[in-house]
Amino acid sequence: MESFSSINDIKNKISQWKSEGYSIGFVPTMGYLHDGHTSLIQRANNENDKVIVSIFVNPTQFGPNEDLDNYPRDLKRDTELCAENGADAIFNPSAREMYGDNPYAYVDINQLSSELCGTSRPGHFRGVCTVVLKLFNIMTPDRAYFGEKDAQQLAIIKKMVLDLNMPVQVIGCPIVREADGLAKSSRNTYLSSEHRKAAVVLSQSLALAKTSLKNGERDAEKILAIIGEKISSEPLAKVDYIQVVDLKSLKTVKSIKDDILVAIAVHFDKTRLIDNFSFKIKNN
Amino acid sequence: MESFSSINDIKNKISQWKSEGYSIGFVPTMGYLHDGHTSLIQRANNENDKVIVSIFVNPTQFGPNEDLDNYPRDLKRDTELCAENGADAIFNPSAREMYGDNPYAYVDINQLSSELCGTSRPGHFRGVCTVVLKLFNIMTPDRAYFGEKDAQQLAIIKKMVLDLNMPVQVIGCPIVREADGLAKSSRNTYLSSEHRKAAVVLSQSLALAKTSLKNGERDAEKILAIIGEKISSEPLAKVDYIQVVDLKSLKTVKSIKDDILVAIAVHFDKTRLIDNFSFKIKNN
Repeated sequence: MESFSSINDIKNKISQWKSEGYSIGFVPTMGYLHDGHTSLIQRANNENDKVIVSIFVNPTQFGPNEDLDNYPRDLKRDTELCAENGADAIFNPSAREMYGDNPYAYVDINQLSSELCGTSRPGHFRGVCTVVLKLFNIMTPDRAYFGEKDAQQLAIIKKMVLDLNMPVQVIGCPIVREADGLAKSSRNTYLSSEHRKAAVVLSQSLALAKTSLKNGERDAEKILAIIGEKISSEPLAKVDYIQVVDLKSLKTVKSIKDDILVAIAVHFDKTRLIDNFSFKIKNN
Repeated sequence: MESFSSINDIKNKISQWKSEGYSIGFVPTMGYLHDGHTSLIQRANNENDKVIVSIFVNPTQFGPNEDLDNYPRDLKRDTELCAENGADAIFNPSAREMYGDNPYAYVDINQLSSELCGTSRPGHFRGVCTVVLKLFNIMTPDRAYFGEKDAQQLAIIKKMVLDLNMPVQVIGCPIVREADGLAKSSRNTYLSSEHRKAAVVLSQSLALAKTSLKNGERDAEKILAIIGEKISSEPLAKVDYIQVVDLKSLKTVKSIKDDILVAIAVHFDKTRLIDNFSFKIKNN
C-alpha cells in the first residue's frame, strides 16, 4: 500500500491504474478508523481492482463551536487498518493542499442541507458536499462507499451525484455496531465510561420504534413518542432531535405511507451522537 | 457528425471514443451560432481528436424578466455550422433531460458572481456554474473552450475548475468582431438597424481606453471617464455598467498595478450588450 499527500501524485497513480484497465473504489474518511470504516474498505476491495482511502479531517464541515481541533487522529493506526483491510492507497492531504488560496467555489443542496443535523450544524453539509465533490474529481472513482450511520450525508451525496451528473456510483453500507448496539463512531472515544453505558439508549429507542412500525404503526407522532420516552428514561441523554422523515426528500412525515428514515441526535455531555434506521413500507 | 439529445447516448459515444484513445474537446453554447462560436469549434478541432458542441438554452441562467422565451434558436443552421467547422457530435438536450425532477444541488462562487453582470443578473452565474459543471461531468472533456467576450463567465469557470479540482483544461478564446468592431453575439440580431449602427460605440469606447492605458494612464477613474464620455456621445446607448476590475478577483481597481479587465454593459432599447478587453501590465 502507498501513501500520498499530494493531489498531483495520487492523480498520477490513478491515471496509471486507469490506463492499465483497473476499476477504482473510493472510501472517503476523516480518519480514526473503526469497524464501520473497515467494513467500507472491505466492500470496496471486493467490488473494485484498486481501493483508495482518503483520511482528511475537513475543516469546512466543522462549525465555529465544533470539535475540529480535538477531533481524534491516529494516522499510524489508520494506515495499518487500511493495509490490513485491502486498501491500495491512502490519500492524506493537508488542508492547504486541498483548498489552496482563497477557495470560493462551493456546492450545496439547500433543500436537504437545512433538515435534521443541518438545523444544529449550519454550513456543515455545504462543507461536506464541496469536499466530496473535490475528492470525486481527484479520484475519479467508479464507486464510492459511505456508511448509513450518516444517513443525511448519504442522502445528500446521492442527490448531489444525481443532480450534477457525476460519473460515480454511490454505495451506502450498513451501520456497524458495538456488542451492546451503539453505532460505531470516532466520536465514541469522547464518552466517559458512564456516558458510554448510557449511550446504549440510542439504539434501544430505535429498536422499540422499529418494532412498532413492524407491528403496523403508521402515525409518526406515535413513533416519536416511543423514542422520546425511552431516551428521557436516561438522565444523561439530552435530545437534539428525533425525526421521522421521507427517505429521499428528508421532509418531516406525519402519516407514514412511503419509505422513511427515523433519525435521532442526542448529546451526552459535550459529545453529540447520531443513529438512525430506514424503514421501507413496501417490504413490511 | 452525429446528434444526441439523450445524456446516456452521448455518454456511451464518449466512452467508446475514450476507449479508443481519443482526446475530447468541448464547446458549450446556447446555439444560434456565430463566428465567435465557430472560432471555438475550429480551435477545439485543432487541439483534440473529437469535438462535441452542446446547444442548450439553459433556463436556470435567465432571470424572471430576461429573454429566455425569445432567445434566438435555429438548430438546422447550427447543425450545419457545427459540421462545417469540424464538430464530431452535437448535444442538444431538453431542459427535462438536463435537470430531471426537482434538481436541488447547485454550484456557486459568491465572491465572483456578485460583481459586474451579477449585479443586474442575480442568480445568473449560479445557473452558469451549475450547468457547466453538469456538462463537464457528462462530457468528461480534456479541454473546454469559452469566448473571452463573456469575460466574467470565463473567470468564474476557471475559478470553479481550480477550486473544485475538475479534471479539464479551460481555454479562453479571443473575441470575434464584426467589420465595424461590434463583438459578435447572438443577441445582436435583436437590434434595429439604427441601434445596430449605434452599438459600434462599445468597441470604440474600449479602443480609446486601451490607447490611454498603452500611453501609461494608471488611474482607473480616468479610464472610466474616457469610456463614459464616448458612450454618452451616443444618445441611443444607456449604460448598465463600466468597470475596471482585477482580472482574477473581479474586484474594482482604483490604481492600476496588476492585470485588469475593462468591462462594459450597455442597453440599446431592450437589448443588453457586453464587451471588454483585458490589459496585462507586465506586457505593456
